[in-house]
Amino acid sequence: MTDPLACHQRYMQRALELAAQGRFSTAPNPMVGCVIVADDRIVGEGWHQRAGEPHAEVHALREAGAAAKGATAYVTLEPCSHFGRTPPCADALIKAEVAAVVVAMKDPNPLVSGEGIERLRAHGIEVIVGVLEQQALGLNCGFVARMQRQRPWLRLKMAASLDGRTALANGESQWITSTDARRDVHRWRAQSSAILSTARTVLADNAVLTARHPQTVIQPTRVIIDSHGLLTGNETLFQELGPVIVVHAPDTAVERNWPAHVECITVTRNETQHIDLVELMHALAARHINSVWTECGAQLAGALLNAELVDEVVVYLAPKLVGASGLGLLNLPAFSHMSQVPELTFKDVRQVAEDLRIIAVPRRVRGDLTS
Amino acid sequence: MTDPLACHQRYMQRALELAAQGRFSTAPNPMVGCVIVADDRIVGEGWHQRAGEPHAEVHALREAGAAAKGATAYVTLEPCSHFGRTPPCADALIKAEVAAVVVAMKDPNPLVSGEGIERLRAHGIEVIVGVLEQQALGLNCGFVARMQRQRPWLRLKMAASLDGRTALANGESQWITSTDARRDVHRWRAQSSAILSTARTVLADNAVLTARHPQTVIQPTRVIIDSHGLLTGNETLFQELGPVIVVHAPDTAVERNWPAHVECITVTRNETQHIDLVELMHALAARHINSVWTECGAQLAGALLNAELVDEVVVYLAPKLVGASGLGLLNLPAFSHMSQVPELTFKDVRQVAEDLRIIAVPRRVRGDLTS
Repeated sequence: MTDPLACHQRYMQRALELAAQGRFSTAPNPMVGCVIVADDRIVGEGWHQRAGEPHAEVHALREAGAAAKGATAYVTLEPCSHFGRTPPCADALIKAEVAAVVVAMKDPNPLVSGEGIERLRAHGIEVIVGVLEQQALGLNCGFVARMQRQRPWLRLKMAASLDGRTALANGESQWITSTDARRDVHRWRAQSSAILSTARTVLADNAVLTARHPQTVIQPTRVIIDSHGLLTGNETLFQELGPVIVVHAPDTAVERNWPAHVECITVTRNETQHIDLVELMHALAARHINSVWTECGAQLAGALLNAELVDEVVVYLAPKLVGASGLGLLNLPAFSHMSQVPELTFKDVRQVAEDLRIIAVPRRVRGDLTS
Repeated sequence: MTDPLACHQRYMQRALELAAQGRFSTAPNPMVGCVIVADDRIVGEGWHQRAGEPHAEVHALREAGAAAKGATAYVTLEPCSHFGRTPPCADALIKAEVAAVVVAMKDPNPLVSGEGIERLRAHGIEVIVGVLEQQALGLNCGFVARMQRQRPWLRLKMAASLDGRTALANGESQWITSTDARRDVHRWRAQSSAILSTARTVLADNAVLTARHPQTVIQPTRVIIDSHGLLTGNETLFQELGPVIVVHAPDTAVERNWPAHVECITVTRNETQHIDLVELMHALAARHINSVWTECGAQLAGALLNAELVDEVVVYLAPKLVGASGLGLLNLPAFSHMSQVPELTFKDVRQVAEDLRIIAVPRRVRGDLTS
């Protein structure tokens, strides 16, 4: 006798692997994988490749052909029940006469969540929900975040010496981390919908902030906060392909001859006279941005953390000691007690060439996901 | 057919495990383990428990009895050939008529290194040297350091937030790391010959700097640098059991009524008017101190690193972000180029409860070990 749950997990694991193949290409759609199993044998596999193209279920059913009849379909996300750019996948599964559908997670869109499952059940198909749900949620954390809280998943990238210094006292920071760590950063950029930075960082480093990773399919939107109207449109950043959003405050929304791939948006200032970061995040979600990868200075890093907008901190620590005169990672209010300090949980620690990469999750995040 | 090298490694691994049982008790002697093997079966095991008591070989030969004749002895350190507080172990092995001796590493004392091996060979015993040598060197890094460079193995312990801050801007630092991390520190203290700190740290924290770990056998010597003559002898530190060395500069070597367990030594000032740390380390080695565990402020931490006296950095990082206004880990000269910054290699990274413990090895250490 085989343990049915272990069986479900094994096939769902495969479906998740297939889904993950879309990590560079499906945005703003979620990654989805599908496996069709008949007589304990995989007869069809598929994954969603990019928005506008067929969903995972369609690819898998095509491969399965007649073998889909009476089979079990494993799908990492609840099959859709509505006509979008493609016909509903629930209908395709019904038409193929599958006997059962195992779903990792419900559709996170509160407007349609559960509808696909109901439709399948209404047609006599057995549906099991929640197999490897945490993995499925993690895989599409950006899409889930945008759907459930109308805000992208935000990662704050930092790079420092082991003693937490981003640069020498004189400002020199090139290169604190290794080539491999910087390559890893480009991989993260390529998997993000947007890269967030500031005009100051762009001007100081002449940064172009594109994803230069061989698997890049979609150039992330570069979102540059320019609350002092410093950018002219002539910076190298604007000469590189890929969309750019320049964020002005109402009082600095100067007219420029922006190139065609540049959108200029205006975000109000908050009570401390800085760009309202919560408003900015909602504006980005409204533009179908699922995930934001942040590379910025100590000021914005601290402001994002302080606003509880950071979902994950990704810190590269180089095996170097710069000393206390070096520059710090982030500006935060001066706390008077240790109990006031933002706390995190270490999630993943690994070596990237000679550097360490630490992923940590803040314990307090504004508008936590409901799963 | 069994691979003879794999066989040797398996038994030496066991001998190293036995040796490590002495980690809290053998100082200033090295840890040594011994396994006697006859017909591919262990017939005797032993480890050195404390200075003045029998060596590992004696324990193992006793257990083996007549079975030692014609057997192979695995010893983690070259058997001694001289009369110390106990008779030479090489003679005991010869008398027991073992056929072969496998040794992990030679005696690191340049005055006697190789003599035990020669003595065994002169009596027709086959000797193999170098099986798991790196592990054996690592196990006794303190003893090896003292023998080969007349300087203890020095570990610099630091504790900080993920962004490298030891305390808030107002100085509050209790507690940045978890109870488990602090328990881990006491385990390190209990395995060290000495704990190095400064009068400033002792006075600021009313620190007693003893090893409070259940397996503690020998209280480490507390070495307190007091270059301004601040200590009076009435501090709580002096009320706790265990030896103390107070380090004065020639100009601050004031007379005090030190308790009997306190030794006051004088170390010259270097060209920057600070205590000459190299001279201090030699003074400690002359007092049979194998290993030093350092817990101090940013000033001494930076000075030790700058003097290339640090063999290992042990950093506890708490999952907290204090911000750039917090206090830094160590004071170093203001570097003008990234290439001047001290570089290290990450050696061991693990989670201790919610904190990370990172062990890193500076690439430049004064008077590197010759192995």
